[in-house]
Amino acid sequence: MITSVNNPSVKNIIALRKKGKLRREQDVFLVEGPKMVSEVPEGYLKELYISEEFHIEQHKMLLKGKNYELVSERVFREMSDTQTPQGVLAVVRQRHSTLEGLLAVPKSHILILEDVQDPGNLGTMFRTGEGAGVTGVVLSRGCVDLYNPKVIRSTMGSVYRVPFVYTEDLHKTIQKIKESCKIYAAHLQGEYDYDKADYTGSTAILFGNESKGLTKETAKMADRWVKIPMLGKVESLNVAVAASILMYEVYRQRR
Amino acid sequence: MITSVNNPSVKNIIALRKKGKLRREQDVFLVEGPKMVSEVPEGYLKELYISEEFHIEQHKMLLKGKNYELVSERVFREMSDTQTPQGVLAVVRQRHSTLEGLLAVPKSHILILEDVQDPGNLGTMFRTGEGAGVTGVVLSRGCVDLYNPKVIRSTMGSVYRVPFVYTEDLHKTIQKIKESCKIYAAHLQGEYDYDKADYTGSTAILFGNESKGLTKETAKMADRWVKIPMLGKVESLNVAVAASILMYEVYRQRR
Repeated sequence: MITSVNNPSVKNIIALRKKGKLRREQDVFLVEGPKMVSEVPEGYLKELYISEEFHIEQHKMLLKGKNYELVSERVFREMSDTQTPQGVLAVVRQRHSTLEGLLAVPKSHILILEDVQDPGNLGTMFRTGEGAGVTGVVLSRGCVDLYNPKVIRSTMGSVYRVPFVYTEDLHKTIQKIKESCKIYAAHLQGEYDYDKADYTGSTAILFGNESKGLTKETAKMADRWVKIPMLGKVESLNVAVAASILMYEVYRQRR
Repeated sequence: MITSVNNPSVKNIIALRKKGKLRREQDVFLVEGPKMVSEVPEGYLKELYISEEFHIEQHKMLLKGKNYELVSERVFREMSDTQTPQGVLAVVRQRHSTLEGLLAVPKSHILILEDVQDPGNLGTMFRTGEGAGVTGVVLSRGCVDLYNPKVIRSTMGSVYRVPFVYTEDLHKTIQKIKESCKIYAAHLQGEYDYDKADYTGSTAILFGNESKGLTKETAKMADRWVKIPMLGKVESLNVAVAASILMYEVYRQRR
């Protein structure tokens, strides 16, 4: 049993929790809790840690055929990103998708995100996106790191299943997507309501930063701007809510 | 200028920030930031505090005709609920609506919430709800306090405009609502997809707790159960997201 925070594996995990750069270098990320660990795709589990107080008997299926290290409760608390650790933590290999792969899907339904900053928003977009049949997500380099533990948690496992790519050059990437998809921008100055567009063909929808929205340059690249109408004095919706409403309209039209 | 945390007004605000019971007794709540303060309805502003570093010149309109107290930066930080205080804080009188008032609205569009616990979720439901034309919100006593500063912040001002009532007896209240509204339960075991129902008449929709959903007893009281279809391996959506999708479907049908 690991009982010291100076154990090299423990030190590495604490560093991985905090540093996106290190996660990229080692090509891994951390997940916590029985649900997230049980859904790790075949072949992607790299290391598994169990706290001494974890109910091993109750989670036999979860641990079946897997190697793991026991860790003292005190040390596990240091490794965990949450205030009430769930007693199981894994180091998981990152998946890598390509833009070509994303675009090869027939009737694609793509989210393009420019500088989305809030971990909860990004995670929620993945979770709702999987439910609404999103086939891929494209993220500008200015978006929050998807492998940030808070984002991972709020994806509720969708991070394993929704393909995504980060792009260094968002405009070039949009240009490429435009060759096969109709591109909509979710925009407060949209020309028409979001439910008046036809999303039954290959579709990509652009969403911008929480406070600034889409940059002018990026918004300009869309084929059409659509808006979500708002009653009362509401100036805007939360970006994850706006994306959810739009993604479910795409799915509604396709059902 | 107030320079001591022992000032009685300051002590009271710190207590109001933490204690729902005190907010109820004094019939007030706290709001922070220029946007929230500028939207306080006429006659509801009770006290106003400005930090010494607040740019008074830049916010002349906000302060016009209002009495306020200057507070030292250090004391203001103690009063504020946020890590980066925005320099303006108000004590605002609570609004009081009645169930009868909520039901008197023609073609009402009501949210009924059972034990929604997360402040961000509740705030987001108010914000999106205002945008989608929700005419009132009914909350079970087990819901998080709407006047919790975190909820207030995430309503983005909708708390001033969307009428709501807390109920001690949710089932009796639902019975009353049923006399004039068709009641739907958002439920994973819904009989049909949410967009197959007709929401053009007076409508109320039930949403449950984040992890447990609706209790059996409450769900039973609905006229119909509707579900949001989900692709992939998604087991459920975040409750604020689910509510947003449903509320916007109601609004879509009514436009």
